[in-house]
Amino acid sequence: MTTDATGAGVTAQALDSLRGTADPRLGELLTGLVRHLHDFARETRLTQEEWERAITFLTATGQACTDTRQEFILLSDVLGLSMLVETLNSDRAAGATESTVLGPFHMTDSPVRALGDDIDLVGGGERCVVSGRVRSADGTPLPGAVVDVWQADDKGYYDVQQPGVQPAGNGRGLFTADAEGRFWFRTCVPAAYPIPTDGPVGVLLRATGRHPYRPAHIHFIAEAEGHTPVTTHIFVAGGDYLDSDAVFAVKQSLVQDFTETDDPSLAREFGVANPFRHARFDLVLERTA
Amino acid sequence: MTTDATGAGVTAQALDSLRGTADPRLGELLTGLVRHLHDFARETRLTQEEWERAITFLTATGQACTDTRQEFILLSDVLGLSMLVETLNSDRAAGATESTVLGPFHMTDSPVRALGDDIDLVGGGERCVVSGRVRSADGTPLPGAVVDVWQADDKGYYDVQQPGVQPAGNGRGLFTADAEGRFWFRTCVPAAYPIPTDGPVGVLLRATGRHPYRPAHIHFIAEAEGHTPVTTHIFVAGGDYLDSDAVFAVKQSLVQDFTETDDPSLAREFGVANPFRHARFDLVLERTA
Repeated sequence: MTTDATGAGVTAQALDSLRGTADPRLGELLTGLVRHLHDFARETRLTQEEWERAITFLTATGQACTDTRQEFILLSDVLGLSMLVETLNSDRAAGATESTVLGPFHMTDSPVRALGDDIDLVGGGERCVVSGRVRSADGTPLPGAVVDVWQADDKGYYDVQQPGVQPAGNGRGLFTADAEGRFWFRTCVPAAYPIPTDGPVGVLLRATGRHPYRPAHIHFIAEAEGHTPVTTHIFVAGGDYLDSDAVFAVKQSLVQDFTETDDPSLAREFGVANPFRHARFDLVLERTA
Repeated sequence: MTTDATGAGVTAQALDSLRGTADPRLGELLTGLVRHLHDFARETRLTQEEWERAITFLTATGQACTDTRQEFILLSDVLGLSMLVETLNSDRAAGATESTVLGPFHMTDSPVRALGDDIDLVGGGERCVVSGRVRSADGTPLPGAVVDVWQADDKGYYDVQQPGVQPAGNGRGLFTADAEGRFWFRTCVPAAYPIPTDGPVGVLLRATGRHPYRPAHIHFIAEAEGHTPVTTHIFVAGGDYLDSDAVFAVKQSLVQDFTETDDPSLAREFGVANPFRHARFDLVLERTA
């Protein structure tokens, strides 16, 4: 006779075993984890064979990780968990720039650059100027704000993915806003790109009939004294995959026009040849309490 | 302004992305997984830092796996998931022997042995006879039933954990029941032992204030024609950790007396010296439908 057909007894024992956890927050997290993990198995009536496949998948995910690749973050990304955690932890005031995921390519320090510098050290793709102002939510400009920028090139690759092909620091820059809180730099329009699909996450994407692409975007971290930093992207309006980002990171407020520009005075101002694309937007920070 | 403070929008997108899954069962499992994973993060208000620690832990767990060590199974074990899955998939008729987890040490074929053989090839610890009958739930003996046995030695180690110290096949035997369904063999009383604690699972056990021990037990898989095989243990009654097995695998019906015996006729029958311990129990299989 089965003494515990629904497994309620095992669940109770597993929960009970966590009562000696020294750190109360860890105890809370592990309790929630065991509860959900067991409910998942119970509700789906998970079979031994399915459990074995899950073990194999998780093991392969761990073993695909290297110094330059984080397959578990990728798994969290494609399951929407990374973006959910980001969302839950970004309770911003009205008007402040929305945040989005950091992503896996902020792994090297961005080189310090002067306002107006070209962060495209290779010179491919469409020429582009990005400009705007760092300001507080009440409109006050934030002189000396630091703006960290990184992006893929016009083929969809980050410098760290192509050592020896792209120079280190290509597509990256650490800028300091001027006395009026303004920032501006030159670059190329980044391309949409697929997340890596040669590992377990690729197997998952294929099994679920999903494409691996992220819409074209530029990453930013903006920081200023007395304000909460923001980690975000801007997405290129009109590009592919904006409504099916493989990692669910698009927020409508972050989609920006990269306007086709052919204005001689603007071209002179930014030191670019016509025509070029121009993305203009402000990075708006929330004052810390 | 935050457009999706609870993350409901991200969850909806992640669930929607699974709609193209070709295998309907996989779709069901992934949908349940995303739902529970997101609810877990939402309910606990998981922080970025906690998420990062979880990623680091899972990565280390995958990287601790080798050909002879499966840290993800161990993690599943100590969270009670392995035993829950086992329980959900072992809906047995009244009277049939209850099942329990396979465990990680059934990794080599047990050597074929004759009834009465001693599976303790080293000769340590307390001498012991294990005997019983394989029968159907209605009492019919099952001649020719196959009984696969494996156990730790009197120090708590399996042969595969100590290559070069224990001979291969120590503590293992593949027996065939006689014409009356009987099986019997000699061995030593196994010791309780700790699961491996030098990896991420050990970190988890220490953080939760749990000991790593499993109560002393002998593993069995019994198979007979026309019957559902059973994978189980017998636990040594009166031993330590019976009510706090690190992997939650104890079922009361599986706890067996290893009776102190000093009976000359029994000693002669089994070819052992007095005194010895004697575990007697039947392996009861359920007829397949």
